[in-house]
Formats: sequence, structure tokens, C-alpha cells
Amino acid sequence: METAAIYHRPESEFAYLYQANDLRLRLRTKRDDVASVNCFFGDPYASTTDDLTNNSGSSHWDYQTTAMHKIASTEDFDYWEAAVQVPYKRAQYDFQIIGVDGQEVLYGDRGVFPFAVDAIGTNGNPFRLPYLHEIDRFKEPDWVRQTVWYQIFPERFANGDPTNDQVGVKPWRSDLSPNRTDYYGGDLQGVLDHLDYLQELGINGIYFCPIFKAYSNHKYDTIDYLEIDPDFGNKELFRQLVEAAHQRGIKVMLDAVFNHIGDRSVQWQDVVANGEQSRFANWFHIKRFPVTYQETDNFESAKALTFDTFAFTPHMPKLNTANPEVKQYLLDVAAYWIKEFDIDAWRLDVANEVDHAFWRSFAETCHQLKSDFYILGEVWHSSQPWLTGDQFSAVMNYAYTETLINGIVNHTLTPTRMVDGLNYQRTLYQRQVNEVMLNTLDSHDTARLLTVCDHDKTLMRQVLAFTFLQEGEPCIYYGDEIGLDGGNDPDCRKPMNWDESTQDHALFKFYQQLIQLRLDHADLLTQGEFTWNLVDDAQQLVIFTRAQGGRQLTATFNLDAQPHSMSVSGRTQLCQNFDKGILGPKGFVITMK
Amino acid sequence: METAAIYHRPESEFAYLYQANDLRLRLRTKRDDVASVNCFFGDPYASTTDDLTNNSGSSHWDYQTTAMHKIASTEDFDYWEAAVQVPYKRAQYDFQIIGVDGQEVLYGDRGVFPFAVDAIGTNGNPFRLPYLHEIDRFKEPDWVRQTVWYQIFPERFANGDPTNDQVGVKPWRSDLSPNRTDYYGGDLQGVLDHLDYLQELGINGIYFCPIFKAYSNHKYDTIDYLEIDPDFGNKELFRQLVEAAHQRGIKVMLDAVFNHIGDRSVQWQDVVANGEQSRFANWFHIKRFPVTYQETDNFESAKALTFDTFAFTPHMPKLNTANPEVKQYLLDVAAYWIKEFDIDAWRLDVANEVDHAFWRSFAETCHQLKSDFYILGEVWHSSQPWLTGDQFSAVMNYAYTETLINGIVNHTLTPTRMVDGLNYQRTLYQRQVNEVMLNTLDSHDTARLLTVCDHDKTLMRQVLAFTFLQEGEPCIYYGDEIGLDGGNDPDCRKPMNWDESTQDHALFKFYQQLIQLRLDHADLLTQGEFTWNLVDDAQQLVIFTRAQGGRQLTATFNLDAQPHSMSVSGRTQLCQNFDKGILGPKGFVITMK
Repeated sequence: METAAIYHRPESEFAYLYQANDLRLRLRTKRDDVASVNCFFGDPYASTTDDLTNNSGSSHWDYQTTAMHKIASTEDFDYWEAAVQVPYKRAQYDFQIIGVDGQEVLYGDRGVFPFAVDAIGTNGNPFRLPYLHEIDRFKEPDWVRQTVWYQIFPERFANGDPTNDQVGVKPWRSDLSPNRTDYYGGDLQGVLDHLDYLQELGINGIYFCPIFKAYSNHKYDTIDYLEIDPDFGNKELFRQLVEAAHQRGIKVMLDAVFNHIGDRSVQWQDVVANGEQSRFANWFHIKRFPVTYQETDNFESAKALTFDTFAFTPHMPKLNTANPEVKQYLLDVAAYWIKEFDIDAWRLDVANEVDHAFWRSFAETCHQLKSDFYILGEVWHSSQPWLTGDQFSAVMNYAYTETLINGIVNHTLTPTRMVDGLNYQRTLYQRQVNEVMLNTLDSHDTARLLTVCDHDKTLMRQVLAFTFLQEGEPCIYYGDEIGLDGGNDPDCRKPMNWDESTQDHALFKFYQQLIQLRLDHADLLTQGEFTWNLVDDAQQLVIFTRAQGGRQLTATFNLDAQPHSMSVSGRTQLCQNFDKGILGPKGFVITMK
Repeated sequence: METAAIYHRPESEFAYLYQANDLRLRLRTKRDDVASVNCFFGDPYASTTDDLTNNSGSSHWDYQTTAMHKIASTEDFDYWEAAVQVPYKRAQYDFQIIGVDGQEVLYGDRGVFPFAVDAIGTNGNPFRLPYLHEIDRFKEPDWVRQTVWYQIFPERFANGDPTNDQVGVKPWRSDLSPNRTDYYGGDLQGVLDHLDYLQELGINGIYFCPIFKAYSNHKYDTIDYLEIDPDFGNKELFRQLVEAAHQRGIKVMLDAVFNHIGDRSVQWQDVVANGEQSRFANWFHIKRFPVTYQETDNFESAKALTFDTFAFTPHMPKLNTANPEVKQYLLDVAAYWIKEFDIDAWRLDVANEVDHAFWRSFAETCHQLKSDFYILGEVWHSSQPWLTGDQFSAVMNYAYTETLINGIVNHTLTPTRMVDGLNYQRTLYQRQVNEVMLNTLDSHDTARLLTVCDHDKTLMRQVLAFTFLQEGEPCIYYGDEIGLDGGNDPDCRKPMNWDESTQDHALFKFYQQLIQLRLDHADLLTQGEFTWNLVDDAQQLVIFTRAQGGRQLTATFNLDAQPHSMSVSGRTQLCQNFDKGILGPKGFVITMK
């Protein structure tokens, strides 16, 4: 057995409360190296009451034993899990690991030792979860599990009120290769006007890109966090929009750009004008005064900056969120839109570059106002430091998307490696985090799915079907559902197509079906046990099931250029290229029993 | 190469700021399996400014390369480290790992891949430290590095004021096998009277076991956190004591017992009397009313408790620290003794069983009042969840003690396994945490060192010398220095021996020398590079050096029953059983150059 591959970490995704009294323990071992694992667990004080003052363990520890089961495998590892009850909220535990070669070890806080029954729980070796406090538990908002998101880039969704258009606005869809600085007049009235459309589509959560007063068309360079951008409307209109959405059962998520502010804000302009004497001088990360930089050919990149910015763009000076005054200002902003407008979620832009101390206070502020508030961080890499229960609810799951696209679309990963990668990401987080992840296949920051799929809508539908069956909630980028395409920014931000004669109605109907399927089985698809039944690199077939309380959904995907015969059981929910037991290229079939 | 043994975790003890701009990266590999490791690191946005909106990495990443060096080995693993500068406070990095078998891999956020130069920094694979905020950095109080602690159990150190003695107090040292319920009359005046003694010994930090109003002789069952126990004195006396200590350059640490309160407190008595109607009903973790239990033969253990307690003792009901009222009350207590009495540190009893949210607020409260306040948790097991920079400064390093005793005293660990164990503990934490650990060889909760050494003072001195040369600060349990012995509680709590005719003056002098050595070279011994020069199981020899800025201390320990010839260079600082190049059993020699 390869003992050096064995890993566990208390108070992490390897040991956490899933529900109030339901402790989940995970263990990592080398792939195909371990035959079985037992977990010995119990109260650390059980039967040690004769020696209360010495916490170092007792040879008479009163423990239970449970077999762990393998929940996932990656290229290098197997992951084992056990669900354990903790009546006194205290636990200590160690693991008996039995190799396929017959070697037996006991693994605990001090490492790996040869297994012996009388070593269980002794020598200070058990792992310890001293007391599992409800206040420290990761609590996900349950409504998110019932949600399908729809992302709107407000300047490009719909122009409902021409009176608020900027001078020089381009006619809607007059240029399908927009420049970075173009305006088309999209606004909140446009969204309000199309709530029926969104309801018809079936989504029940809107994620808005920034709507606060800002300079650019993307509004990530905030001028005033407490005003709606006049291009988009006003507060009264936004209030109406939230109310109308809520009446339709649609949740509302706004984009909080707290890492940086726009350089046209009052605060930054004051620093530019008054330098060190500015009352906002400590609002930023300034290395030396005056605040200057050298321009480059790229508007969004500068050299010799004397202050910290987002990336190297001089137009987005970084906020000093550790300054109590800045912190309170931004927390007040966070609270204002919840209290006054009843929003349900914040999406946090460049969330990974703001300090943890700030996000802890942010989460506290939001949850005091709405206990089931959803906090979604923009983090592209592994995100454990933010997903500990005191900061974010989840992150935008770009890692999922990249792995899936490389598997299904680009074929740079074999089915096995794709599944390894998806499993790997699943093991990074607590189970409830995975269940409220935002699985976005594309966004204002990436090429659109249709373009990624090289305009192959059959392939696109296969990617979508796969995604809608994962634990995390799918997020549809506006217009994907009627066939909008587009490469990387700014191409992915072209205006929505409202011309019914050129919308793809078949695709829209497919999205409707998929959303309905997702919402009909939201519990099963978020919380149901995930099992890979077949991952076949030769035939390029992937079959998985989701199972919960007697219900079982089975999904089969053919990633091959060849058809394969396939016998399915259960009631077919949705399929593509599946006929008379033959699953064609890019085909899938979803059945339920 | 065993790729399944490779491990790294961003924002943990594997990746952290040691000083403001000094990033430390660690990597774990299988022992003796890897020939070398290179780290590629740089700003995540460097040379990606042409594609700002896509954070997923660039093939034109502008990175630097640094070789990592092996800092420690354990039975299973080698640990590698690199110090890296981060001018923009942002970093991404991946590792090139070259096996002794010649295999080369690139290891990053998505796992291990075959090495290729053009894969460096690509495919979303680098690890990421998005922005290293000073507010999130672990900041240790520097004065702790210059400290040698002395632990006082107040009831047993010295009786300076017989007028505050309890009725029935036993004459000092009349019974050297004290019962759990005996009183001897020790008090704060006794400590004040002996500050000259402590100064002569040379210590410069006092760690007091609880001094607040409580029922038992150990005072861990608090009645009132805002009163000095009348057995010990009053606030005016405590104020004098702190001032007198500070005048002598001695820091003062008090014991905060916030996990539970005494059952004789007003709060608990109100719950006993009024049950669910008590205004303190939510101050505790009560399963059902009334609060009852079944007694057992053991005073400190009960059955069928209807409320949570420390362990199973009915006399220590657990406080509900998640209740905002309780939290504020305890935070006010924490602040009160800092503001009013200028204490320098809190030691936190049963610290691991109180919620993290509470400790975060606690640390904030203390550090707002004193930015270099020291917070020491009582945690016996691995303590990463509390040592993230926002909770404790350090923990009581019982794991060190156990490993050392098993090596040097009990010989149940070979020198190699002992060193493996010590290295393992060193790799659990950030470097600055190790530098402010409290290395206690014994305490009110364990047998005294002299008894552990079976009254072998030569062996005891060897254990002490070894300990005083580690990164963490040594803590002397009152009386050890004059030869006090004692088994487990209550035997380890016998009254201090003030009878000079029976004190061990030679041992006292040894302690003086060791303390002086420690304080003379505090920087070197806390921050100096630690190298094991020889760990020889056959000869039972251990040699290590501590090096910093041209200075180097070398320490040689003979754990063998046989003498060994030994040539040393440099100026001898302290030695035992070392003469004419022969190092006898239990001998050691410490030299400096």
C-alpha cells in the first residue's frame, strides 16, 4: 500500500457537518491501492471520565466502527466517505486502511502506524473535531437548489426605454461585432418587458451584471454604488422589477464590484485632485503620490502605476477594504440593496482579490438581513479558502466548464480523464457547496457556448443536458437559448435577438424542456447520489445515475463519432439522436425510474 | 516517482506570508522520491493585459523560476520550501517536480501533468494566491520570541497573605500527596513576594492558571469572571502585581475559561431555579428542562445529563458562545482585564471546543486594545483550524512534548522516529506560529518532568536543554527548577518548596544558565534555520544546528547508555557529561560560533 498517498484534514472538505448532526468524513488514498477502510469514531470523553484532566486519550475509549465507501476516483486517487452521527457534537476518529496487498495501517492525527486493535484511539493519535458548532457549520440557502439561473448583461438584453439612451447609441443589432465601447441602449425596462419571456423559458433566478452608476458599457467601473446607472433606469424602476420578478417566483442576484471602484468616482477623483491631502487617500492601495501611470497602446493596461488596480488597468483603482471606513461603506451598500430592494443574492466580482476579513463581515451583514441569502464569488481556481461557511455560498464553477468542454467538445480529454477531472472538483468542497455551485457554461467573460461548439447545436444540446444533471445549478447566458453566438469579449456581448423570425425556436423549446426536467427533479439532481456507471474510452460512452429515495435518473452520453446500440430502462425524459436502441453521435438519453 | 504523494494547499501552512512581502511556499513529496523541485511564480496578470477579461491564464505568462530546498523529512515525506517576493501582492505558481527516477511532472491547481515548458502557467493549472492582504496575514507578537514562560498554579505557589486563607487550609507542604479538594492558601501576595525570586531565575513571562472567583482550588469552575477569587486577593493587589511584573520586564498571561462556567455561578443557578423561564436559559446548551443529571461515583462525571458540559462533569455547564449576549459578555471580560489591568496575553482553556466565530471576535477585541497581544489556545491535537491568523497566536505544544519524551526518556521512539515526529509537527504550521509556540514539558494537567524522568535529574537536564533550543518558547512549571516532583493531577499540584535547605540549588543554577542562553540568543533560537546534522539510531546520537546571519549554534545529544567520542568546534555554551572529547550517557554539549 502507498501510505504516502493517504490524506485527511479535520475541519475541511474532508471533515464537516452536512446537516446539523450529520458529520461527513472523507479519506483520500492512492487509486486502486486500498481494498477497504473502516472508521473508528466516538466521543473523545467516552469512558475517560476517570481521568478528566488529561485529554491525550485513553486506552478504554468507547468507540463505534463504520465501513467507509468509495465515492469518487480521480486519475491518482480514490476518495472514501462515511456519514457519522455525533450526539454530543464532539468526535474523535481514526481510520483502519487495508491495502489490496493486505497491509493494514491505522491513520490518525500523528500519521500512519501499523494497525493494532489496542492502538485505536490511543497515543494522541485520533483526529479530533472537538465540538461541532452550528454557528460554524456551512449553511447553504435551500432555495438555490430549486433554481435555474439566467445571466443578463443589461446593456445588451433589451432596450425598453429609448429616452434613457446615451447619445450615439447604435441601433439594436446594427453591428454584430460590437466594439468594447459601443452602446446599444439595453436597460431595466427592457428586462421588465421580457419577464413573461423569461417565465415562458422557465428560469427562476436572474443574475444581473452590474447595474450601478458607472462609466463603461459593462459598468464594472463603478461611479456610485448607491445609484442605478441612468442608462439603465432608476431605483423606482428597479424596485418594480424586483417585485415583478418575485411575483413570478424569480430570484434576483446583483453584481457587487467591491475589489475596485471606477476612476471617475468621487472618491478617486478626489485623490487625483488632492493627493495625500484627499480625505479618500486611505481608501486605496497607493504606493506613492501623486497617483500616476504611463499609458500603453491598451486602454485597459498601464505601466509604472503608483497605485494598485485590478490587473493593470488604471481605470479600476483597487479599494482598501481593510480600511474600516471603506469596509463600512461597502457593507452599507451591501445592506442597502437587500433592505430597500429585497434582492436575494450578491455575485461578487474579482472576489478572490478582496480580503477574507472583509468577506466574513460581508456574509454576516447579508445573513443578518436575510438568513437564506446567497453569496456567489467569482473565483476561477480552487476556492476552499472562501468556502468554509463564513464567506461565500459558492463560486462560479468555471473549472467544471473547462473540464467538460475539453472532454465533450474539444476531445482533448478522454472520457476517463474528463470524469477524473469532474470528480476531482467535486472532492474539493463540502457536499452542500457542490449543491449550490453556479455551473455557467459561458458568460460575459468567455466565448458563447454555441461558438465554443463551432455552431454545432447538436453538440451544444449534449453539453447542456450533461450540465443540467450535475449537482450545481445551471446558469444560462442571455440569448444562448435562441441561438446567439459570439467569441470572447466583446463578441459575446452582442445584443439579444428579439426578432422571432430569426430566433431558434427549436433550441428554445429544448431549453424549456431541460429547465423543466431540472426543476421537476431539483432535489434528486442536487442531493441525489452521483454514480458513474460506465466511462468507456474505447466506445466513448459515459453513463451516470443520480439516485435518491428510490428514484433513479440515468443519463447516457455518446461522445463518439460512431453510433452505439444501447438498451435503456425506465421512462425516457429527454433524448437526442436516440432511436430504436441506437444512440447516435452526440446523442444522449435520460431515463427515470 | 510517486505522484500520489505530492501535496500542496494554497492559503494554508503550505502557502503563506511570513513577513509582509515574504511569501513562503511549501511542497510535500514522498520521502527520498524526488531529486529536485523548481517553482515557477509570477503575477497572474503579467503579460496577460491584452486579454484582461479572461482570468484563465495565458500562454505568455511572465514568470520567474526558483529552486526549492528540502527543509524537513518525516517517515513518509520530504518537505520543500521556497521564499518568494510578491511586489504586486498577487501570485500564481506551479511546481516542476523531478523524481529520482528521472520522471518530470508539472503540479498545479488541477493536479499533476507531464512536464512541458509550454505548459507552465497554462490551462488554469497554476495555484493562485489572488491578493495577499496584510489584514489576513498571520501576525505574531514579536515579544513572545524573547520570552521564557513560568507557569503558576496560584493556590500552590506561595501563601503571602494568611488572612485570605479558607477555613481548614492545610499547613504549607504538610501533605505532599494533596487531594483534589485540599487548600493550602497560595495567593497573589505570594507571587508578588517572590517576583525577586522569579527575576533571579531569569524568566520574563508568567502564565497564571485561573485567578477569577471560582469554587474549587483549581478555579476552572468560574463563578464570576470580573472578580479576583477572594482566596487569592483582590483587584488592587492584582494591579500591583502586574505593575511590579512589568517593571521587571515580566509579561503576564491569564487563563480564560470561556468554554464553560462553574455551576455555582449566578447564571447557572438561575437556570437551575427557574428552568426555561430563566433569563439565562439561552446562555447554555440545554437539551431539555429541567437541568438534571445522575451522579456517579466520580464527582466530575455524571450520566443522563440534560445539558452540555465540559466532558461529562455536571459542575461545568458549557456556555453557548454563539448567543450574542453570552458572546458580548465574554468579550467584555476579555477586554476588561486588558484595559483595566494591562495584561499581555490570554491562555484559553479547552479552546478547541468553543466556536471559531467566537474566537475571531475575541482576537479582534484583544488586538484592538493591544496590537501585540498574545493568544494561546489549549489544544492537544493538530491545530491548523485555529492558527490561520484570525484566532490564536499559538497553542500549548503538547505534541512536541509527547514526541520528545517518547524519544529521549521512554526510548519508545528511535532517534530517527523522534526527529520524524518533531519535523512533522513543524510542518503543520506556518513558520511564525512555530516561533511563538508554548513548549511546555509539564503542567497542572500532566505529571511533572522530574517524575516523568523517574527522578533522574541528568536526564531531566538533557530534556530541558533540547527544549530550550527549539523554535517555540519554553514554559517552566513552578517548582520544577528546585526539584519539585509529582505524578498526574492532583499530585503535580503540590505546594512549592520554599525551604532553601531542601531546594535543589544546582538544578536552579542549571535553569538559570539555560534561560540566560535562551534569552541571549532568542532571535537565533526562534528564527534561525533548523538543521539536523546527525540522527544516528545505532549510536543514539542527535546533532542539530540553528543558524542565522553568520551565527551558528550546534547542539549534540547522546541518548545512548554508552559514551561516545565527540569533537566539537566553537565556544561551549553549556554541557553535561562531556569531558575530554567524550560525551557520556545523557550528555549534551552546546557550542556557538
